[in-house]
Amino acid sequence: MNVSKAFIPTLREDPGDAVIASHQLMFRAGLLRKLANGLFAYLPLGLRSFRKVERIIREEMDQAGFLELKPTVVVPGELWKESGRWESMGEGLLRFKNRVDADFVISPTAEEAFTALVRDELSSYRQLPLSLYQINTKYRDEIRPRYGVIRGREFVMKDGYSYHSDEESLDKTYQDMARAYRRIFKRCGLSVVPVRADSGAMGGSGSEEFMVESVIGDNTLLLCKACDYAANVEKAECKTDYRPLSPEEGRAAAASVAPAETIETPNVRTIEELSAFLKAPPASFIKTLIYRAQNVELDLSSAPGCSSLKRHGTEAAPGAYIEAFFAVCIRGDLEINETKLAALLKASEVSLASDGDTERLSGAPLGFAGPLGLTNLPIVADHSVCAITDGYTGALAKDLHYQHAAYGRDFSAWMLGDLRTARAGDPCSLCGGELYEKKGNELGHIFKLGDKYSLSMGLSYLDEKGESRIPLMGCYGIGLDRTLASVIEEHHDEDGIIWPISVAPYQVIIIPIKFEGIMKDAALTLQKELEEGGIEVLLDDRDERPGVKFKDADLIGIPYRVVLGDKNLNAPNPQAEIKSRREKENRLVDLKTAAGDLIERIRGDLAEFS
Amino acid sequence: MNVSKAFIPTLREDPGDAVIASHQLMFRAGLLRKLANGLFAYLPLGLRSFRKVERIIREEMDQAGFLELKPTVVVPGELWKESGRWESMGEGLLRFKNRVDADFVISPTAEEAFTALVRDELSSYRQLPLSLYQINTKYRDEIRPRYGVIRGREFVMKDGYSYHSDEESLDKTYQDMARAYRRIFKRCGLSVVPVRADSGAMGGSGSEEFMVESVIGDNTLLLCKACDYAANVEKAECKTDYRPLSPEEGRAAAASVAPAETIETPNVRTIEELSAFLKAPPASFIKTLIYRAQNVELDLSSAPGCSSLKRHGTEAAPGAYIEAFFAVCIRGDLEINETKLAALLKASEVSLASDGDTERLSGAPLGFAGPLGLTNLPIVADHSVCAITDGYTGALAKDLHYQHAAYGRDFSAWMLGDLRTARAGDPCSLCGGELYEKKGNELGHIFKLGDKYSLSMGLSYLDEKGESRIPLMGCYGIGLDRTLASVIEEHHDEDGIIWPISVAPYQVIIIPIKFEGIMKDAALTLQKELEEGGIEVLLDDRDERPGVKFKDADLIGIPYRVVLGDKNLNAPNPQAEIKSRREKENRLVDLKTAAGDLIERIRGDLAEFS
Repeated sequence: MNVSKAFIPTLREDPGDAVIASHQLMFRAGLLRKLANGLFAYLPLGLRSFRKVERIIREEMDQAGFLELKPTVVVPGELWKESGRWESMGEGLLRFKNRVDADFVISPTAEEAFTALVRDELSSYRQLPLSLYQINTKYRDEIRPRYGVIRGREFVMKDGYSYHSDEESLDKTYQDMARAYRRIFKRCGLSVVPVRADSGAMGGSGSEEFMVESVIGDNTLLLCKACDYAANVEKAECKTDYRPLSPEEGRAAAASVAPAETIETPNVRTIEELSAFLKAPPASFIKTLIYRAQNVELDLSSAPGCSSLKRHGTEAAPGAYIEAFFAVCIRGDLEINETKLAALLKASEVSLASDGDTERLSGAPLGFAGPLGLTNLPIVADHSVCAITDGYTGALAKDLHYQHAAYGRDFSAWMLGDLRTARAGDPCSLCGGELYEKKGNELGHIFKLGDKYSLSMGLSYLDEKGESRIPLMGCYGIGLDRTLASVIEEHHDEDGIIWPISVAPYQVIIIPIKFEGIMKDAALTLQKELEEGGIEVLLDDRDERPGVKFKDADLIGIPYRVVLGDKNLNAPNPQAEIKSRREKENRLVDLKTAAGDLIERIRGDLAEFS
Repeated sequence: MNVSKAFIPTLREDPGDAVIASHQLMFRAGLLRKLANGLFAYLPLGLRSFRKVERIIREEMDQAGFLELKPTVVVPGELWKESGRWESMGEGLLRFKNRVDADFVISPTAEEAFTALVRDELSSYRQLPLSLYQINTKYRDEIRPRYGVIRGREFVMKDGYSYHSDEESLDKTYQDMARAYRRIFKRCGLSVVPVRADSGAMGGSGSEEFMVESVIGDNTLLLCKACDYAANVEKAECKTDYRPLSPEEGRAAAASVAPAETIETPNVRTIEELSAFLKAPPASFIKTLIYRAQNVELDLSSAPGCSSLKRHGTEAAPGAYIEAFFAVCIRGDLEINETKLAALLKASEVSLASDGDTERLSGAPLGFAGPLGLTNLPIVADHSVCAITDGYTGALAKDLHYQHAAYGRDFSAWMLGDLRTARAGDPCSLCGGELYEKKGNELGHIFKLGDKYSLSMGLSYLDEKGESRIPLMGCYGIGLDRTLASVIEEHHDEDGIIWPISVAPYQVIIIPIKFEGIMKDAALTLQKELEEGGIEVLLDDRDERPGVKFKDADLIGIPYRVVLGDKNLNAPNPQAEIKSRREKENRLVDLKTAAGDLIERIRGDLAEFS
């Protein structure tokens, strides 16, 4: 391909709204243009690299025995109503009505579409496991799209779904994907941090996110300095630096503690204010917050204050409680992790109750809630609370707190769990080493979904004994645009992109100092020889100064540059100047052997990524 | 690939709503499933053939020097407002608002998106011609989707757009595409009828549709029995079987005709009624219909009755008249062709005026309009009217017609043109041969757009002299789903699909009578040998009766079937049974040479399609 024909509109300036390298470079190198906020068009050069990422993903999915399908991008809303996500997804789900008033969504993921297809075909255990995927356009109605394709509205995702008769089979495919994902990112030249999390909010029991480090990352990661533990802060387990007591142990430990009694705390509400007012460390307080949870699947029939709540399903499929409230307690110096809380409650979403709900349900003004004497809400406590045998907490009345509150003696919890947000400096839950923090962007996610969709969408099969059973499901996603942008984030310098050979739009750029005479002849011959060797070649045939051509070649980041100049070609032994984009130095090689030389080097480079 | 792993859910019965072969067979052969009315998912086997069609198209587009881009499927409504299509497209355009109330469309075609991208990059004539394309998801909110993917809501289209500095350059690319399209359809094994039409409704001056014959075709084609003329009835030119006269000639010819005079025609309104009542042939009548035209670009400043009409644009870009009315006259035995009428008037749409408008504007009850004395509407006449020098026509009053009406003497037209709908039996406009009729479906369309989008969207460049100029545009579309379905329409029999080798999902299916012992060994060895030769092989490893396997193989239409049976394999000279899907007879070949034999045949077959 000749540069003059390739439509590569490079820019000298960064676009005004681009604050990260990949966004800047995708525009400057002529890979991408903007159609509207969050909507981008790949130009030919960008599309070539995009297709290479796509091909790597497809090869690894096929290799793992997944079968490619092509459902539609627009999906009937009915399917989303069946799964319950029509209601539970936020406004990021793009819903629309067509001209005959039927509901549709533009897919952000496709659990529903795949499960509906499988539902119609699945009858026997002999058809399982069944592993399917697509690489297709997705849409998320981002309220604030930014960072170029890293957070766009329309994007392409590879999403795979697998169906299994048992945990073991699901686990095997899950592990296959865990390995395939590592290979995919390695082949793209990316350093990813696989982040494990053993509890998920969606009823599954296994999940791994594939993160790249990024200053603008959406996710906070906690990594261990001593072992390879890595977790999303939303899910990071906490190793306790205290011993949670049983209620009996709590009672025993509080034997010598004075009885709980109220103290006046006029207008003192927050932990910080209390700590200063009472001259006691935040760790001596029991913080109590009222939470509202939506779509709670947990059985609340015996929970305090919940006897009048009704599930919204039928007797056979009881469904979830649309809304329930909980008093959530944690040690005063710690923060509640809402992802963990939602997972514990099997809720689709949790959020702090409104001020009005908080006061109504706790029967106390804001800032004075506490577990002692609280009878009309289920108390859900973090393990940290179970170590407090002489603490402070709200007394459910204006300007009053308790002192000498003891777990097990003065109050207990309806439910206990790890609800604490881990933080840098905490001990690693695997080895006790110190955790440190990184910002990361998620490129991929593999997830054991369990029976969530199988149940809600009525997926079943007959087992060996002819009995009806519910399959288990896994899902596996990778964002292609984001993956491509992350390659640029990781591989660039001040002059431009430095493509890994595996996803470079072209492998060699030939630059004749002028595209005429002996230089033109040599360029055309070399191009032909390289292309015959299977190499992808860009030939800069433009009538531009050499400096402009070199700058553009660096900007678009082609791995190898061959410069053909008059002087070197007219020497008794004609030579070409070869430079790798990763290196500073040129090498002069005999023109005669230049093509063979490059073909061999590039094949070697490619082999490293295969 | 083994059949047991390939997810090919074949069906014995046709789906209830499928009335054409491709729809039936795509479901029965497990290529396709329905997600909702007009929304289909390709299963693995269908997707393989789909991708082959896609690859053929991509190769031919690249070969023709077109560059592939990937804009978004969702496109900002603003661009469609710029081009005017936001208003002028009907309800088939899917418009929606996102959460922040911005307008979007799901692209049915992408003139706007491409032109917006080019607008930002185009500055100099040196960048032209520029030829771009995409292969991407499209959406049309069909009110009545049917015939499977032939008329679905979501589909994939290859759409290309080219930009040129002059007619000659546009014509060159247009001709390149005309040739590329012929190759594309030939490579897919399709017999297409290229249908030329030299007048388009959209201001262009060249257009060719690529049709396949189909009983459920949307289009009526007229073909010549004597030459290769073929046209869509909407656009077919008419060779006149009369000589249109100039007004002067009309006056002269009417010299001996009695003066026009009114005759009573009580309650006689239609041509049929008049013909019976007056005992005169329909060809002696001048039929006059009042039409409403929208977005009329023609200059109406001097047209009768139009002096108060205003264009909706600015002085610099005057834009179109939103609405205008015309009296359209044609000989009584002929039909008005609305596509031709719209093209003549440069209108986006024409339709018969409402009864109220007709009576108000003609000043006569329905059925009594005519050109004599009609002064408040522009009269637009078909050439056929110019040959009438002694005819009947409405007299603009209840129960009155004129007789002895003569063109040129008693009335004239504000505008003349070919407005007649051609029909079977008419003479060919090229050679005079007889035209006959076929129903066809459009698979592709190439079209000279001219400056329509360049003007409305403000696309320009500087020419050699530094002067600002408006580029010309061409557009080139192919529907992939429809192309694939048409291949099946053309290539099937009562047992199933008969894939052309170029788009077959697999090229060979190996059927061991039982997948065990010597048959299994031979099957696996043959599979390996064929795959090493680059052949795509399906191996039926299922525990099914041979009859079931044979039926499925015929249904899914794999070009070559190899049956491996105990008896033939145990013979002193082991043999395999090879059968082409196109032929009735088996052939026994030596097992040793079977792979080589097949590889050679298939390479030969493929060469015929390249």
